[in-house]
Amino acid sequence: MSGQDEQKPIGVGLIGFGTIGTGVVKVLRDNAEVIEQRLGSRLRLVRIADLDLDTDRGVDLSGIVFDADASALIADPDVQIVIELIGGYDVPRKFILEAFAAGKHVVTANKALLALHGREIFGAAASASVEVAFEAAVGGGIPVLRSLREGLAANQIETVLGILNGTTNYVLTEMESTGEDFDVVLKRAQELGYAEADPTFDVEGIDAAHKLALMTTMAFGAEITFEDIPTTGIRGLLPIDFELAAQFGYRIKLLGIAKCHRSEDGQERIEARVQPTLVRDSSLLAKVDGAMNAVLVIGNAVGPTLYYGAGAGEMPTASAVVGDLMEIAREIRRGGSGPVPPLSYFPEQIGPKPFVPDAELSGRHYLRISVKDQPGLLGRVTSLLGDEAVAVETAMVRSANGSDSIILLTGVAAEDGMQRAIVRIVELDEVTEMPRVIRIEEEA
Amino acid sequence: MSGQDEQKPIGVGLIGFGTIGTGVVKVLRDNAEVIEQRLGSRLRLVRIADLDLDTDRGVDLSGIVFDADASALIADPDVQIVIELIGGYDVPRKFILEAFAAGKHVVTANKALLALHGREIFGAAASASVEVAFEAAVGGGIPVLRSLREGLAANQIETVLGILNGTTNYVLTEMESTGEDFDVVLKRAQELGYAEADPTFDVEGIDAAHKLALMTTMAFGAEITFEDIPTTGIRGLLPIDFELAAQFGYRIKLLGIAKCHRSEDGQERIEARVQPTLVRDSSLLAKVDGAMNAVLVIGNAVGPTLYYGAGAGEMPTASAVVGDLMEIAREIRRGGSGPVPPLSYFPEQIGPKPFVPDAELSGRHYLRISVKDQPGLLGRVTSLLGDEAVAVETAMVRSANGSDSIILLTGVAAEDGMQRAIVRIVELDEVTEMPRVIRIEEEA
Repeated sequence: MSGQDEQKPIGVGLIGFGTIGTGVVKVLRDNAEVIEQRLGSRLRLVRIADLDLDTDRGVDLSGIVFDADASALIADPDVQIVIELIGGYDVPRKFILEAFAAGKHVVTANKALLALHGREIFGAAASASVEVAFEAAVGGGIPVLRSLREGLAANQIETVLGILNGTTNYVLTEMESTGEDFDVVLKRAQELGYAEADPTFDVEGIDAAHKLALMTTMAFGAEITFEDIPTTGIRGLLPIDFELAAQFGYRIKLLGIAKCHRSEDGQERIEARVQPTLVRDSSLLAKVDGAMNAVLVIGNAVGPTLYYGAGAGEMPTASAVVGDLMEIAREIRRGGSGPVPPLSYFPEQIGPKPFVPDAELSGRHYLRISVKDQPGLLGRVTSLLGDEAVAVETAMVRSANGSDSIILLTGVAAEDGMQRAIVRIVELDEVTEMPRVIRIEEEA
Repeated sequence: MSGQDEQKPIGVGLIGFGTIGTGVVKVLRDNAEVIEQRLGSRLRLVRIADLDLDTDRGVDLSGIVFDADASALIADPDVQIVIELIGGYDVPRKFILEAFAAGKHVVTANKALLALHGREIFGAAASASVEVAFEAAVGGGIPVLRSLREGLAANQIETVLGILNGTTNYVLTEMESTGEDFDVVLKRAQELGYAEADPTFDVEGIDAAHKLALMTTMAFGAEITFEDIPTTGIRGLLPIDFELAAQFGYRIKLLGIAKCHRSEDGQERIEARVQPTLVRDSSLLAKVDGAMNAVLVIGNAVGPTLYYGAGAGEMPTASAVVGDLMEIAREIRRGGSGPVPPLSYFPEQIGPKPFVPDAELSGRHYLRISVKDQPGLLGRVTSLLGDEAVAVETAMVRSANGSDSIILLTGVAAEDGMQRAIVRIVELDEVTEMPRVIRIEEEA
């Protein structure tokens, strides 16, 4: 250890002193010894910047400059790595670009920013010959991005799919186990701190789409933002959906799914979506309960691999942030004069890739159709589906609380045929609202 | 990509051209394009050395020198990274040390060698300022070692446990689903290629102990060889064990388990063992079937994380080997004159750590005791257990094929008390053979 003790500590600045930021301070302090052992030098938290200077975060800040001046933090010559944990788009984007311009490396957990402005951010980092690390942006403490870009680097990635949002997984798990309605469970999740006061980003699948966009870019080199990803949230799911799914041998999970379709001539096309999905109850993903996350990555050499852990929270997310700090610190220690090759991938390798049209996608589906006067209707619905080459494998009629529902499991059918059939089913007088369609993912 | 195209390819030599070696050739060929994109330079397989020059491996070897001279391969100035895939102890050890002496980096999948001579190998690599990478040694294609040393680097690791051997997991899964005896299932596993002709290393838990020793060293910096790890294999498990485990809500898995007990004063003590274990059927590990592997890693910041995938096989293992090649190739590209800090951990940080004595370990157990004349015996067995402070939670007596068994689930009790009770139970005249004791692991 003698040679290593002489290493100068590596200076870190933290912008954004909320929950995750507090976790970072704790991890740097609690695990200082093991970090130094593994790194060969110390990580020293030099400065913290946050607009809220009053809240007591319950951590000792002795020896750390703490003020509201993020630009001064970035300019501080003692700060070699800047951690951005503000959230949002414009302000963090400004600080990150400022840090690059000052030659500082950046660690961020900001999936929303990267999912929208990733190309700009990665390009700017490469131009400035600095690193930007963002393991915490997907899957909290689970080292899934690192696995994707390093451990599985020798693979053509075929599929990335998973439970990417802990709030919605908590709500779905609770709805299933209690039989309660969405609103009831969401309210409890908010009271317990599993869901935010405004749950839109989580519940509507937007947070999952942010994360999926990032992974799609990393896995397939596809230039994609979350706005490109068809996204359906978990509102509108009813207790009966969970009950019937279980009866059919499935569970309902909100999945982000991205696949790369490679043709013989080497053309690559992307399939990506976020939606409630039926997964077989014998699958590993079906066992991922509560606020936990899991990502399945399938590579052409390695086959299926899965990564599981806490997808959010103070300490798990801080674990990923400090892991990134250590990786960059090792780069700094390694020194060298020229530009350091990016840790992740080459921005110039990322480009637009076409999406697979719905007509070429196919799958099995669960359908719940609310109807009145149901007698005889089942035959007509089945016939409308048949017109679009959608076979019905299982059909049942349920009456509850004075309303009737037709529930169907279909065979494998083209997405566009399915959608056309739904349009025609909605036109039936007896159908009282938009049918609930849940895709079955056999690969999960 | 212009600047990167000019990079010289990085030369690789392969010693050992068996199943995994063939997989490596395939991955380097099939995924050449994506490897070059991610690395910024090509990996060129320059030479292969193997004693068997005759077998047709079904891969194109044009442009590759293929002979039986491993030393010439190591000495070849075009070879920068040597892949060792021979297996065994002495011969690979010799070649690896020879490669270090020649200034060559090494990638190996040889867990047996590293579990026995790890300290020497890692020390020699550090002295020679070269890398030794070995992701494929544990969990096949699953990037679990990389997660341990990089993604979770900010954590004090508390527990590493998992299904580390695909052969035994296949046998256990089959025994459970068919109700067949061990010998029947093992024979079929051999016919299907899941088990080797001499299955000792797998079936007796030795292969799992090799892998656990490596992970224990990496996770806790504990100098440990597989010989230090108490190891019990899967022979002797009966169909009734699976049936009753299921009835109690458990499944039987062969787990490698290592935990680090940290006391207030910072002292670290190790608990490590390989043995058949009851895991709750609601756990993720319970869902890991057939030849798949999974490792649970618990860190003090990240909490529980799990890594799942194919633990063996041509292509999954080759995925890990080529991933290691890419990591080292990136180091080479990065250049720099001085010694490169080790990728994994500092050998000088590894030292002997005491084991936790059995008296301080506790747990719940499943006991199956073969008896004759069982009436009245249950009370005496329960009383012997009670004398050692082992409470009985559930007890049943089973008669099958003319022999009786007492089956017990115990409460939490100290390991040494449990062992003393077993000694006294064995002394009973009515007990016909050594009781089967299976530990219950609640953390799994």
